[in-house]
Amino acid sequence: MRLRHKPWAAEYLADHPEILEPDPASYRGKWASRFSKDQPLYVEVGTGKGAFVNELAEQNPDVNVIGIELYESVIVTAVERAVEKPKDNLILLKQDVADLTDFFAPGEVDRLYINFTDPWPKNRHAKRRLTHEGFLTKYTEVMKKGAGIHFKTDNQGLFEFSLESMSRFGFYFENVSLDLHQSGMRQNIMTEYEAKFARRGMRIYRLEAVLH
Amino acid sequence: MRLRHKPWAAEYLADHPEILEPDPASYRGKWASRFSKDQPLYVEVGTGKGAFVNELAEQNPDVNVIGIELYESVIVTAVERAVEKPKDNLILLKQDVADLTDFFAPGEVDRLYINFTDPWPKNRHAKRRLTHEGFLTKYTEVMKKGAGIHFKTDNQGLFEFSLESMSRFGFYFENVSLDLHQSGMRQNIMTEYEAKFARRGMRIYRLEAVLH
Ligand SMILES: C[S@@+](CC[C@H](N)C(=O)[O-])C[C@H]1O[C@@H](n2cnc3c(N)ncnc32)[C@H](O)[C@@H]1O
Ligand SMILES: C[S@@+](CC[C@H](N)C(=O)[O-])C[C@H]1O[C@@H](n2cnc3c(N)ncnc32)[C@H](O)[C@@H]1O
Repeated sequence: MRLRHKPWAAEYLADHPEILEPDPASYRGKWASRFSKDQPLYVEVGTGKGAFVNELAEQNPDVNVIGIELYESVIVTAVERAVEKPKDNLILLKQDVADLTDFFAPGEVDRLYINFTDPWPKNRHAKRRLTHEGFLTKYTEVMKKGAGIHFKTDNQGLFEFSLESMSRFGFYFENVSLDLHQSGMRQNIMTEYEAKFARRGMRIYRLEAVLH
Repeated sequence: MRLRHKPWAAEYLADHPEILEPDPASYRGKWASRFSKDQPLYVEVGTGKGAFVNELAEQNPDVNVIGIELYESVIVTAVERAVEKPKDNLILLKQDVADLTDFFAPGEVDRLYINFTDPWPKNRHAKRRLTHEGFLTKYTEVMKKGAGIHFKTDNQGLFEFSLESMSRFGFYFENVSLDLHQSGMRQNIMTEYEAKFARRGMRIYRLEAVLH
């Protein structure tokens, strides 16, 4: 993700605490109370500019959605989108996914999305990959039993790595696609990165991982 | 596999019992005694014309190799290859993989290879796929604990299916490659089907599956 300095972003985010929750730890274990309705909670890690979470929330009024993104200058676009088209089932967090267990209680998350996360191709950076066992540990701490991780990427090496790390961790796979856009997918929600890669004709890999 | 009628095949095979073992059940649990040396046993299921097993046995004198193929008219080529270039660590079986547990005792197999097995694309034929749970059950009955299944295919749908069925069964994956021939592979032994598909520039998928 190329970062542009946006000096106005911090102020804009501070002006929209109804969308960008500044104190997520205070809702740990009680997110249902932070939304209008008590319904399943889907979380996307590494949300970027938020086309996906905005669309996901809009298409699924019966689900609460939280998107987590590290950078102010990136997540600000996700917040702008939510301001333009308000919905009462979307919250955004400018946080580090590494702190996930501070924000969610065990079993609080019904589904986790990882979309086009940074591949960190060098072996010595493997721990930073959001499908590394260190992150998988955190996901499983907050996910409901039987909940799935829905993962998409254009990056072959990252997908290979993730098949290995997730299966070693004890996940099994459902609805694997090694060429999503040629697979007669039904209701795929495109992310920003996905749209870009799909335009270039690149393959998109996808899987759902469920804990044994 | 296109079958050509070869009326001479039955006789040729009967003439080479040193290579094509006619009574594999009688060696169940004591294959080491059927070979010159007591050493690890690698088995390929769906061997076809046997380029792979012949090369595998030649490159690995410290391993015993058994190739299993259903059709006389196909396996006869594998036997011819072994006659031309004799090796004391290769046995072939004209048998149905479905009967695997009749031929091997629990823990007798140190590695299993599945190469370019028939994809059976229709759902109602899924049970015939050599990576269907019915076959996986048999493999795990004869494989040593910690032994791996090495699986290659050109068929995207079969690879997707196999990732799902193997992971659901309790296998985890190592050395996954979603484009083997572009992956800087080191010592890959090509099969007949692989050579054909690689010439056409098709992707080859590969994985190693290990039981948890
Ligand atoms: C390559 S972008 C993809 C964005 C979006 N998911 C998409 O598909 O268009 C990955 C995003 O993940 C964010 N990210 C990476 N590691 C993160 C972490 N530990 N915590 C929060 N966000 C993270 C990056 O800042 C970046 O915006
Ligand atoms: C597509 S060919 C591939 C041959 C070879 N492995 C290669 O890669 O060139 C699959 C082979 O598996 C054999 N086969 C399929 N099902 C089998 C079974 N149940 N038992 C034994 N052989 C089988 C078929 O007869 C066929 O020769």
